[in-house]
Amino acid sequence: MANEIHFQEDAASITDPKGFYAAASHADVRKKKDHRLDTGILFSRPPCSAAGVFTLNAVKAAPVLQCQRILKLDTSVHGLVVNSGNANACTGEQGMKDATAMQVEAEKACLAPANSFFVCSTGRIGELLPLEAITKAISSAGDAIRSGATVGSGFAQSILTSDTRPKTCTASFRIDGQTVTISGVAKGAGMIQPNMATMLAFITTDIQADSTSIQNLLNEVVKETFNAITVDGDMSTNDTVLILANGESGCSLNASSEVLFKEALFKVCDSLADKIVSDGECITKVVEINVKGADSDTDAENIARAIGNSLLVKTSWYGNDPNWGRLIDALGYAKARIEQELIDLSYDDVPVLVKGAPIPTNKAQWRKCVSEPRFSININMNVGQGSYRLRATDLTEGYVNFNMSE
Amino acid sequence: MANEIHFQEDAASITDPKGFYAAASHADVRKKKDHRLDTGILFSRPPCSAAGVFTLNAVKAAPVLQCQRILKLDTSVHGLVVNSGNANACTGEQGMKDATAMQVEAEKACLAPANSFFVCSTGRIGELLPLEAITKAISSAGDAIRSGATVGSGFAQSILTSDTRPKTCTASFRIDGQTVTISGVAKGAGMIQPNMATMLAFITTDIQADSTSIQNLLNEVVKETFNAITVDGDMSTNDTVLILANGESGCSLNASSEVLFKEALFKVCDSLADKIVSDGECITKVVEINVKGADSDTDAENIARAIGNSLLVKTSWYGNDPNWGRLIDALGYAKARIEQELIDLSYDDVPVLVKGAPIPTNKAQWRKCVSEPRFSININMNVGQGSYRLRATDLTEGYVNFNMSE
Repeated sequence: MANEIHFQEDAASITDPKGFYAAASHADVRKKKDHRLDTGILFSRPPCSAAGVFTLNAVKAAPVLQCQRILKLDTSVHGLVVNSGNANACTGEQGMKDATAMQVEAEKACLAPANSFFVCSTGRIGELLPLEAITKAISSAGDAIRSGATVGSGFAQSILTSDTRPKTCTASFRIDGQTVTISGVAKGAGMIQPNMATMLAFITTDIQADSTSIQNLLNEVVKETFNAITVDGDMSTNDTVLILANGESGCSLNASSEVLFKEALFKVCDSLADKIVSDGECITKVVEINVKGADSDTDAENIARAIGNSLLVKTSWYGNDPNWGRLIDALGYAKARIEQELIDLSYDDVPVLVKGAPIPTNKAQWRKCVSEPRFSININMNVGQGSYRLRATDLTEGYVNFNMSE
Repeated sequence: MANEIHFQEDAASITDPKGFYAAASHADVRKKKDHRLDTGILFSRPPCSAAGVFTLNAVKAAPVLQCQRILKLDTSVHGLVVNSGNANACTGEQGMKDATAMQVEAEKACLAPANSFFVCSTGRIGELLPLEAITKAISSAGDAIRSGATVGSGFAQSILTSDTRPKTCTASFRIDGQTVTISGVAKGAGMIQPNMATMLAFITTDIQADSTSIQNLLNEVVKETFNAITVDGDMSTNDTVLILANGESGCSLNASSEVLFKEALFKVCDSLADKIVSDGECITKVVEINVKGADSDTDAENIARAIGNSLLVKTSWYGNDPNWGRLIDALGYAKARIEQELIDLSYDDVPVLVKGAPIPTNKAQWRKCVSEPRFSININMNVGQGSYRLRATDLTEGYVNFNMSE
């Protein structure tokens, strides 16, 4: 069937789009003497146009600065190299040298031209990379790439930190007799309030597109997907989303393909964002907060984030407690126009407040909603047209325990 | 000795200033059939000038609105009535009626004129007060007041919620042969990022002062004390600080007494603010974050709050982990001017970063600092003259467990 997007998660690989290769290796970045994959390469033999979205944190890790430098050159790229376990953030000049060294080593290992690779790191902040070990691992992953490795599962493993599972998906559609494929791979799972968060996401596609068009589409889609999740309200120094488009499908991004392409890109990003939030550190619940009728989209976002980041709200979710008073308290300190006596609020479709007045007879149903692993909070401020959707998590003793030690 | 402030905490009572009475009673607001004091009255026979500072939360509890109404009348007041266990917040018109009923009952019980009492509530949000039981408790506390009760300890108990201990202190000084006394009583302990937080603080003094002068002084002092603490980053619907000045000392607030009075008021508020943060829900550490050299005081405050409210920073404190990378990450997403390569940072007086570069040889000393129940984080941004001091707490599994259930 034409004009239909085929979407898959289970057997998806970042190498599903034509012409992409991936491999991973072990540099023992964490010095744990295990065999954990921690260094990955993604490669396209045909040159790609590329786009990226990066953390807005004023403190940016060295690889983020390096990616931004590469993007600015506006030349073709061929791939990226990434390590987990060490973020190469707050590492000063040596960090910049190390990021460049990783990039150069990967280009060499893949026989790619200079300045054609992005470089990413994720993990602990403030320590220098074990560069020698990473260099060896890059070289070994490069050997696999040159021999034609197209298995993305090792790559998807190699970028993980506190994630409990890899995160990949693939969307494809047919147009004008050709198949266009978009694949993504991502990692979470703490320091997640992207804008971007300690989050990396890499997207490959075989559509033909110029970098400006693809950057514009990426900006639009990231805003409503990766940037609309929160685990702990902390925005990382390393958040990066990169997309590489190599044109191998034979189909171009144009007026007739753009709607489908954007829809497929949205599906990929939305699915990865959901995978990140639902694999948040030691969480037990994902809560979708839908705010509408706010004075502006910004007001709606402020309200959703105040609720989704409130410790008291998050702990009550963990305890299956429909404590709407804490929701309203958080809403009240959001920077937004609030007319308390106009607010409609429901858990899923069960009313909690109607025009500001509680419906306490629904209490048993509220409790049933918030006891589920997924539920939604739907708020109509009834003062305007602004809306926002945020996916948030609960806060557990496990999160505290997990993050209290190095 | 003249011009010296005498300060005491252990035997302090809100009735230390001349002419103040206090009593407490039990209304079983929590329906636990225990004997917990939960209803209190504070009374001055001589009329008082008064001032107040209230939550900036857009959702204000009924008693907050009622206090603001009373203050606006700018007439003399004689006291206040308070209950714990139920915040009378998000309770609509009935909540306003109940707040007024509490006030009227207290005025009646103390034989005080109409509109001469403040009313405060603290506790769970979104449920109606058990008014009949509270009315009886007010009447019984009124009996004690009329028979001359001046023991503040029951009153200090009656306002507590999740606090583990009462919080009182008294400062006094002599001037022109007379003694001026200021006493305060407060409660925390969750939903604490005052501005104000689920925090109540009541201050009595026997100085003679007009309400405008005392309001101005209160505003200045609260900004640097109660408003500069955070336990969980949640700002409550009920935060209230009230001061009553009855003039019984025979001394007036004037050019010669103002410096000492302000210093004494600061001591009282600062001590109560410290008692609130150090009795935060299930905390194990109090951390003073001192930011200086910021582009503005607002920048300094944004930096301090980003750090003090970061879940990852707070959990690392709990774990005695000198994870400065998380500090710098939080600093990086604060809305402030940041020149990473200029930042000086230390734990107590042990350098962590000097001009942005880490001093890893100090690591053992960092760990010693952050293992203490109190330590400071001192940051010089080296870009301007802005400064801010915030007292924050760690985040523990106990906090999550405590707040997950009703």
